[in-house]
Amino acid sequence: MHTAIRPIDNGVNVTALLDAREALSQAPEAARFNWRASCDWIRGTHSRHTIEGFHGLGEPQRHRRRFTFDSDHPEVFASEDQGPTPVEYVLVGLAGCLTAGIAAVAQHRGIQLHSVKASVEGSMDIQGILGMDSEVRNGFDDVRVTFDIDAEASREEIAALVAQSQKRSAVFDLLTNPTQVSVRLA
Amino acid sequence: MHTAIRPIDNGVNVTALLDAREALSQAPEAARFNWRASCDWIRGTHSRHTIEGFHGLGEPQRHRRRFTFDSDHPEVFASEDQGPTPVEYVLVGLAGCLTAGIAAVAQHRGIQLHSVKASVEGSMDIQGILGMDSEVRNGFDDVRVTFDIDAEASREEIAALVAQSQKRSAVFDLLTNPTQVSVRLA
Repeated sequence: MHTAIRPIDNGVNVTALLDAREALSQAPEAARFNWRASCDWIRGTHSRHTIEGFHGLGEPQRHRRRFTFDSDHPEVFASEDQGPTPVEYVLVGLAGCLTAGIAAVAQHRGIQLHSVKASVEGSMDIQGILGMDSEVRNGFDDVRVTFDIDAEASREEIAALVAQSQKRSAVFDLLTNPTQVSVRLA
Repeated sequence: MHTAIRPIDNGVNVTALLDAREALSQAPEAARFNWRASCDWIRGTHSRHTIEGFHGLGEPQRHRRRFTFDSDHPEVFASEDQGPTPVEYVLVGLAGCLTAGIAAVAQHRGIQLHSVKASVEGSMDIQGILGMDSEVRNGFDDVRVTFDIDAEASREEIAALVAQSQKRSAVFDLLTNPTQVSVRLA
């Protein structure tokens, strides 16, 4: 059986994650993380974003490099389309979170993944953001994620991977449950 | 007075937006938008994302170019840090959405902006995503946005810009209110 002669490797270090869980159970304060982004307005609806530092394990942390991104609105909104829209960044976060979780859960369960593709779609009635109808919300009214997964497992096992990832996903939680957001002037 | 001799220009075409609102009031079906992202798993917690097409104004639309992004987990999670974490992408979306709104509202109100900087921070107890404590949620327990704005307006007028942007922000709504998200296999 070819699955028996090579180890399962999805590139996730499950041992390190289990060790971290054990270490954090002794020092739960270290589990408090702060994630950060900064944003500079360029012009119109175009902004530039920087991600570099965060806080966790009780001390300041840094990504290996600084990441920068532009956001904008598209030409159909009379903008210059210098980057994805803000809501598309949210879809990127959702797909990335669920996919990383699938890889981690698969590794933990000994399931070899070959490919994972996600398509995410969020529908919105822009009468909300345009202030045309106060009954229409600003955000998505519905978000749909479709996974196409090739793995050495049955369809039921693959469905269970997706379900477990969803259960532990930070971004899935952020979208489906309300979060306190405060906005203030410096 | 120097403000009287040059027009207010934040780079937002308010006339086009008001015209669009008028046009959509005659054809509300055109206000239905679908935003999309696709995601390919690379290895471990590392995925690559593509944003290009969307749907709106009754027909398929395209960004001026294809945007691609990587997401990953950092080295403190035993990952390779090939990109920001998924939750950081959500913070990018929040800052970009509020900032674009501030520029649009300022233009509409005749307020010249000089600079807008946003710092966004989301705190999270990773005992949630690690499955250590079922009482701890997976997502942020709190998100804070701080704006530093230089504009030709009083602090009260600037605070009112921020408040109006928040009121019409798609991503602020997505975070503060629950959204239906369905996840399925192809």
